Amino acid sequence: MGAVMPRLGIGMDSCVIPLRHGGLSLVQTTDFFYPLVDDPYMMGKIACANVLSDLYAMGVTDCDNMLMLLGISQKLSEKERDKVVPLMVRGFKDAAEEAGTTVTGGQTVMNPWIIIGGVASTVCQPNEFIMPDNAVPGDVLVLTKPLGTQVAVNAHQWLDIPEKWNKIKLVVTQEDVELAYQEAMFNMARLNRTAAGLMHTFNAHAATDITGFGILGHAQNLARQQRNEVAFVIHNLPVVAKMAAISKACGNLFGLLQGTSAETSGGLLICLPREQAARFCAEIKSPKYGEGHQAWIIGIVEKGARTARIIDKPRIIEVAPRGAGPPPTVTTPTTPTAPLS
Amino acid sequence: MGAVMPRLGIGMDSCVIPLRHGGLSLVQTTDFFYPLVDDPYMMGKIACANVLSDLYAMGVTDCDNMLMLLGISQKLSEKERDKVVPLMVRGFKDAAEEAGTTVTGGQTVMNPWIIIGGVASTVCQPNEFIMPDNAVPGDVLVLTKPLGTQVAVNAHQWLDIPEKWNKIKLVVTQEDVELAYQEAMFNMARLNRTAAGLMHTFNAHAATDITGFGILGHAQNLARQQRNEVAFVIHNLPVVAKMAAISKACGNLFGLLQGTSAETSGGLLICLPREQAARFCAEIKSPKYGEGHQAWIIGIVEKGARTARIIDKPRIIEVAPRGAGPPPTVTTPTTPTAPLS
Repeated sequence: MGAVMPRLGIGMDSCVIPLRHGGLSLVQTTDFFYPLVDDPYMMGKIACANVLSDLYAMGVTDCDNMLMLLGISQKLSEKERDKVVPLMVRGFKDAAEEAGTTVTGGQTVMNPWIIIGGVASTVCQPNEFIMPDNAVPGDVLVLTKPLGTQVAVNAHQWLDIPEKWNKIKLVVTQEDVELAYQEAMFNMARLNRTAAGLMHTFNAHAATDITGFGILGHAQNLARQQRNEVAFVIHNLPVVAKMAAISKACGNLFGLLQGTSAETSGGLLICLPREQAARFCAEIKSPKYGEGHQAWIIGIVEKGARTARIIDKPRIIEVAPRGAGPPPTVTTPTTPTAPLS
Repeated sequence: MGAVMPRLGIGMDSCVIPLRHGGLSLVQTTDFFYPLVDDPYMMGKIACANVLSDLYAMGVTDCDNMLMLLGISQKLSEKERDKVVPLMVRGFKDAAEEAGTTVTGGQTVMNPWIIIGGVASTVCQPNEFIMPDNAVPGDVLVLTKPLGTQVAVNAHQWLDIPEKWNKIKLVVTQEDVELAYQEAMFNMARLNRTAAGLMHTFNAHAATDITGFGILGHAQNLARQQRNEVAFVIHNLPVVAKMAAISKACGNLFGLLQGTSAETSGGLLICLPREQAARFCAEIKSPKYGEGHQAWIIGIVEKGARTARIIDKPRIIEVAPRGAGPPPTVTTPTTPTAPLS
């Protein structure tokens, strides 16, 4: 949250307030925004995951309480409102439940646009959160969700806007876009809670979550807060399949490959000791954490002036949608195959 | 807050979450709304006072942390924005400072309308808050700010709308409205913190703050939560001077005398033991708490079915604006006076 209101924040994703009682701290965050997917239930889950993500970036795994913020659009008919609002609320509450917490209150207003967001708070002991300022040269950077949510959401809207669709239809099919949109939606709705827990297991030195400023913006924010003189260098960009092609076809409109494309409820960017990072990436895929978790080593921490950059021509890792069969890159085989009977 | 989103709330102004640590509870609340006064700085103060009021209604006097919620209207020019937004933020932060707390983060979005609000959280021991469910027959009801903020704000807007102004100009002067508007603004910006502290001193049994549902709506909410079979009966309505006349002249458009006129950042409605209530009202006027505090005994708690009502023809207490000389009701003396030399 600090990133969006830097004058008030303290450069971290959540604020950490020392309490009057026995060495405890209040860690809390708030976020609210506007719907970006069509499905109200999924939108509720995404909003909740996005709020919680700021706690998870601090290594906090248990949220003590959530409040919900809702703006109901005056432009909705009564019928639309009665359908849409309960589904959004349900999605939000279900994601909170998945996170092991509950929504105990909130505020609702009428507004020209729909608003959804919330507040997440936890009270914890010093060992329950990880201050994001301890990266050292030799660490590596791990990312826990692929990039490209904004591109996927926009491309999906363009399916219905011929002049926009014409710009990208040479590089993607409608099916590619549908799959990417769904993949982005499920990624946005997925909690970063498992990653937050593994930050402790594998001794993370610092982390942030990727949202409105894109991978590069958040990497720069994180670098700026480090106690040691370090710089972050990003070599690899995991992106939802085909989104890099769309971004290029639009003349880099989104800045996806420059690292400036906005993400919603993106992954955690975590600084880990080199020897731990591969184990982190292997562990997060374990079935015991449920489906869909994945992480990539995307860069290194070197000595430097608290900056972050992406190398020229980073490697693009195309992340295929789950359950979509073989990755789209092999749909045009270059070697002869036996005909299917 | 619970009142505005009853499905999610627990019928109280703030949620109270038992924590995993040593008998502590997290008490927190959130509120956001739209500007209702012209002065951005005062609007910031009002928003902050309004958020904190939900904590104060629980007898919590110390807020550990605040977050700010801001929506910046796209309709503001850059020049307007650069003037208005910093003043609102400043007002909010100044009120937080006055409350002995700080604003450590928040969220800002662009929106068609300006939004301002926040989150207030505190972690406290069981003796630091008062559960609002302990009223007993024989208690009396005390109110700590006069009613009529909505009427004052609307009447002030009507100064520029001739067809509206024509409706009320027979019962009020422009000066009456200007004074009432200012009085309402200062009342809304005033913290209920002193009242929260005195709730402990004088052994309050329950309290709520008066906002969107008006005095009657919030009295009913509070009555509904009582453990004992009680009913609240309201006899007196302290209102900002002249607002009752305006409300009548508008055919009870606002419901001010019916107790349903919305208030913003209104006073606390407190159930106090009878013998303590007068002392509460005397003490709150003490200069040691600063200027402007006042409280009125407005009703009684009797045996009943957890309901609240206002008697037929309640007594209207006209609360004169401070610094406005003698109360307006004596400007036409009925007894001869010696001419002033």
